[in-house]
Amino acid sequence: MGSSEIRVEIVRSEVLQGNALGDPAERPVHVYLPADYGSSGERYPVVFLLAGFGGAGASFLDYEAWDETIRQRMDRLVATGQVRPMLLVLPDATTRFGGSQYINSTATGRYQDYLLELMDWADHTFRTSPVREARAIAGKSSGGFGALSMVMDHPQAFGLVADHSGDKYFEYCYLPDLPRFHRALEATPDLEGVLEQPRESRPHDQSFRNVMELAALSACYSPNPSAARGFDFPIDLETGALLAEVWDRWRLHDPLRRLDDRQEALRSLRLIYLDAGRRDEFFLNIGMRLFHRRLETLGIHHFYEEFDGGHFGLDYRLDRSLGAISRALA
Amino acid sequence: MGSSEIRVEIVRSEVLQGNALGDPAERPVHVYLPADYGSSGERYPVVFLLAGFGGAGASFLDYEAWDETIRQRMDRLVATGQVRPMLLVLPDATTRFGGSQYINSTATGRYQDYLLELMDWADHTFRTSPVREARAIAGKSSGGFGALSMVMDHPQAFGLVADHSGDKYFEYCYLPDLPRFHRALEATPDLEGVLEQPRESRPHDQSFRNVMELAALSACYSPNPSAARGFDFPIDLETGALLAEVWDRWRLHDPLRRLDDRQEALRSLRLIYLDAGRRDEFFLNIGMRLFHRRLETLGIHHFYEEFDGGHFGLDYRLDRSLGAISRALA
Amino acid sequence: MGSSEIRVEIVRSEVLQGNALGDPAERPVHVYLPADYGSSGERYPVVFLLAGFGGAGASFLDYEAWDETIRQRMDRLVATGQVRPMLLVLPDATTRFGGSQYINSTATGRYQDYLLELMDWADHTFRTSPVREARAIAGKSSGGFGALSMVMDHPQAFGLVADHSGDKYFEYCYLPDLPRFHRALEATPDLEGVLEQPRESRPHDQSFRNVMELAALSACYSPNPSAARGFDFPIDLETGALLAEVWDRWRLHDPLRRLDDRQEALRSLRLIYLDAGRRDEFFLNIGMRLFHRRLETLGIHHFYEEFDGGHFGLDYRLDRSLGAISRALA
Amino acid sequence: MGSSEIRVEIVRSEVLQGNALGDPAERPVHVYLPADYGSSGERYPVVFLLAGFGGAGASFLDYEAWDETIRQRMDRLVATGQVRPMLLVLPDATTRFGGSQYINSTATGRYQDYLLELMDWADHTFRTSPVREARAIAGKSSGGFGALSMVMDHPQAFGLVADHSGDKYFEYCYLPDLPRFHRALEATPDLEGVLEQPRESRPHDQSFRNVMELAALSACYSPNPSAARGFDFPIDLETGALLAEVWDRWRLHDPLRRLDDRQEALRSLRLIYLDAGRRDEFFLNIGMRLFHRRLETLGIHHFYEEFDGGHFGLDYRLDRSLGAISRALA
Repeated sequence: MGSSEIRVEIVRSEVLQGNALGDPAERPVHVYLPADYGSSGERYPVVFLLAGFGGAGASFLDYEAWDETIRQRMDRLVATGQVRPMLLVLPDATTRFGGSQYINSTATGRYQDYLLELMDWADHTFRTSPVREARAIAGKSSGGFGALSMVMDHPQAFGLVADHSGDKYFEYCYLPDLPRFHRALEATPDLEGVLEQPRESRPHDQSFRNVMELAALSACYSPNPSAARGFDFPIDLETGALLAEVWDRWRLHDPLRRLDDRQEALRSLRLIYLDAGRRDEFFLNIGMRLFHRRLETLGIHHFYEEFDGGHFGLDYRLDRSLGAISRALA
Repeated sequence: MGSSEIRVEIVRSEVLQGNALGDPAERPVHVYLPADYGSSGERYPVVFLLAGFGGAGASFLDYEAWDETIRQRMDRLVATGQVRPMLLVLPDATTRFGGSQYINSTATGRYQDYLLELMDWADHTFRTSPVREARAIAGKSSGGFGALSMVMDHPQAFGLVADHSGDKYFEYCYLPDLPRFHRALEATPDLEGVLEQPRESRPHDQSFRNVMELAALSACYSPNPSAARGFDFPIDLETGALLAEVWDRWRLHDPLRRLDDRQEALRSLRLIYLDAGRRDEFFLNIGMRLFHRRLETLGIHHFYEEFDGGHFGLDYRLDRSLGAISRALA
Repeated sequence: MGSSEIRVEIVRSEVLQGNALGDPAERPVHVYLPADYGSSGERYPVVFLLAGFGGAGASFLDYEAWDETIRQRMDRLVATGQVRPMLLVLPDATTRFGGSQYINSTATGRYQDYLLELMDWADHTFRTSPVREARAIAGKSSGGFGALSMVMDHPQAFGLVADHSGDKYFEYCYLPDLPRFHRALEATPDLEGVLEQPRESRPHDQSFRNVMELAALSACYSPNPSAARGFDFPIDLETGALLAEVWDRWRLHDPLRRLDDRQEALRSLRLIYLDAGRRDEFFLNIGMRLFHRRLETLGIHHFYEEFDGGHFGLDYRLDRSLGAISRALA
Repeated sequence: MGSSEIRVEIVRSEVLQGNALGDPAERPVHVYLPADYGSSGERYPVVFLLAGFGGAGASFLDYEAWDETIRQRMDRLVATGQVRPMLLVLPDATTRFGGSQYINSTATGRYQDYLLELMDWADHTFRTSPVREARAIAGKSSGGFGALSMVMDHPQAFGLVADHSGDKYFEYCYLPDLPRFHRALEATPDLEGVLEQPRESRPHDQSFRNVMELAALSACYSPNPSAARGFDFPIDLETGALLAEVWDRWRLHDPLRRLDDRQEALRSLRLIYLDAGRRDEFFLNIGMRLFHRRLETLGIHHFYEEFDGGHFGLDYRLDRSLGAISRALA
């Protein structure tokens, strides 16, 4: 038996061709192949693992002090029998503004469709079990949001989901940041230049990151083909006022608001894994708690845990979600 | 000519009799009498000056390093001719939870009516010019809110208003704090005990203050005679969720929301003075800016300034507002 | 039996005449007289209570939400028998820079001597028990430092001391702030103007307060009659470098460093009361702990408590220290 | 002409054999080979690039939103002619506690010697110009410290150095953190367990990171073969007190303190590049400024820049230092 492998494939996407921000259609996809993949001849379950805002598939291979890369983690989990051998697909759904939230938007690109495209690509490229019961999608923060959005929109594609500290309950996770974001905008004299060429902006400090995050979320949640930038900010750039009409468009994307409409999709899943830290800096534990309560009320089976911790340094939680996925797979 | 004086009168209020929180109906009222009050025989304009949350009339006499008490300030302003001799009335509208926002509420007491009661009392006790054109109301933060609320509700009583960094645009000045407040509640095992006897709670740290502020604002903005506490919190104590119905009741008190309905009241004023710091920690400058813009659109004359500074250490701004009041008095 | 009283006397100080900063020699002294003072004809113990940095004797009468003024506190403590009737003397030892640390300095004035002067004054003005066994000195933060410094220098004057969270172990309570203070200096274009007329500086924000605190401590701990300002900063204004020679002069004032030399003074006291919060923002609990340990090693009897809390909102601790003083008085 | 390459070689170190913490002696070394390396047949200058605390050579390849990996950066700099083709060696000098500061210590391992070993290895493995005039060492934060320490100790090995925001002036960059670190220790019940197996500790939050940083720096700066852990903490674990004797051993490593002794080493360099951000969160700009001033006084040629920014998001500064290195190479 050989050793595991991270395969990096450059995939040319159809759906990202000509995307609105001019971001590349050809992107690397990182794939974890377990140690016995080369020798077994068998088919494997697949987990799509989605990075948080500002991250990409490659981020799962970043050096992290006192921690493992995703490859080391999987090798250990498989070796100890906590997780069965399976493939991980680590997509790059980034945009010029930092991230796509893994959803479709005229202002960024069809990033949810991109994930579906990669799903087909993976089924054709690797020996996967090409059925939803053997296909999971998971992520943390924006990645958790993307995973949950996917199973609500396409339950036929993925039969299991894990959402760690994912964006939801926008009233708490986004709205409180809007006046802060506005102050960052006020401190950015050349806003259009920064939006056009963020990489050239100096330095990449907190103010810069606030501007980027506001632009990214606006492009995802409130696209507007007839606007100059292709999207609307939910705040008036001059006064800082919340623009209720735009904000309402944001909220349509809130998983918590969408839950009832998508309850049949959620009910059809083999696994819904949810967790969040009790001291989450963005109060995502409250949104998670509300999602959990509503699932409970609706009688939709799921796993939920609120643990001692904040929003950061949580990679170790993957041991739990990958284990849960492994056990729940067909 | 004698010297100025701070007269402290203990006034028994009719309207605060039997108030819901059992707070005293008999309270001190501090009154500034200018130096020539004793000798001139003339009648004087009156300014009601309202303390911020957690403060009372007595707070204006607190020792403050590198600053003046209100008496020292007035003496200087009068001596240099920046302000004409006038009376200041410094009411105590505090409650067990810290403050009343100077409005009527079944859950606290009729504190706006209390100000009107003191207005009559002052006219009968001192040689005031008992007309609205000679009567101003001013304050900072919660005091600014109280002043603005008063002239919107009772323009016949006060003809001039000054609002420094007053609470408005609740979406920005309160909503972002709600999840933080909820976390403070979660860290308060004996919530009912703390609400019942805040003075006994130890220590009076930030978490305690958060609990108090939430209770105070809830009692002011969302009273509910049929609730056990007499008011509703705008968040679910267990999950932390925003309770939209209660929150909507809060918003009815937002001066920005009330502006259009009360535009005739505002238009009738001799002076509307507004200012806020560009770095206000509660983003009150945005609310102030929006209020200013709307007044402009409606063609309502006013003074507005956004200055370099935050929310604290702003007593020096009184020089400007008292000067503006002095010049605009009949 | 009458009621208690806060007597405010304007006292002309001999020792503050011609002080270096030109601060007033004539100052208010607030004195608490217990309810039976007028009728009993007896002599009373005296507690000198020292305010923290930025405060004065008058600060003990400031309005404080959810708390008592010192008069209310004493009335309650006496009424419940926790504290025997005694006088409190609340001196004003402030300077243009905010505070004197209650010590003598050529750059500020002889503020420790001023306390001794007030001690004599009190003995001549009120029916005190004019003996050290009936005389205590207490304070918090800079006031705790001043109290402890006094009994180390003049144990014949005060026989009891209470130090709440007092400045000590300068390596931890001051040194970490020096680079921050330097950054505040860099952000103060008109430094000399601000030092000359702090009251005129706008706004009185954190940066201003940092500049004031550095100036105040430097004037207290590193006076230099031959320097233009009358004192030396412990940092190079241009580079920010710590000036070891000046810093060493600061450290000579550290109660922890002085302890061994002054152990006989400390040993002679009837009461040494020490406490600090486990979460003190300036890590004063560590200095307090070290002071406590050293007293223990030297076999010097004292009371010590590290409690759950930080540096602020601690007025309630006065119940404990005043009670301990009351019980330990002759 | 081909494309550039990141070569990852697993190198078995002699000097790290049997290191004190049991960290691997066999480690990856990442090497950047410029595009023409394969075809030119020429010899190339070499830059050793050292990661900051918590980072390794692999960190330079981490995905970073709005930024380049080191390979992309070098490709661009070479393509635009800002930097001549040269090799980069990216060593992994991490330890169980996070980092080695790139110096020798009995408590961690001989990490400075390890860099010299890699220098030889690189000269034997790649077509380098094996002379000091063609060899630079550079880094940020702890990496800047390591680079500067190297040229002070071994000027014969590296003829050029670049230090971005490197640790120096320990009074400001470390001492203020010691009480905070102590508080983190107090919040870590199983300290020995965490030190033994940091990867197992949950969660990896700020408190954990503080404990790690204190352990790492102590192991580097105050090793003690006769101590149970192999090193001494500079603070008393129980009281938090600064241990002067240990702290003095730390300070012996401060580049600012070593400067005068090592001035001939520094004078011999072809390039000394120094910069720091004016808002550096650890006040490293002050240490850098002092280093710069002292070099100036000693007449040692160097480049120095204090720029607008803090301690983070500074990768763009590599454009300047790599450019300066390129121009100054033989």
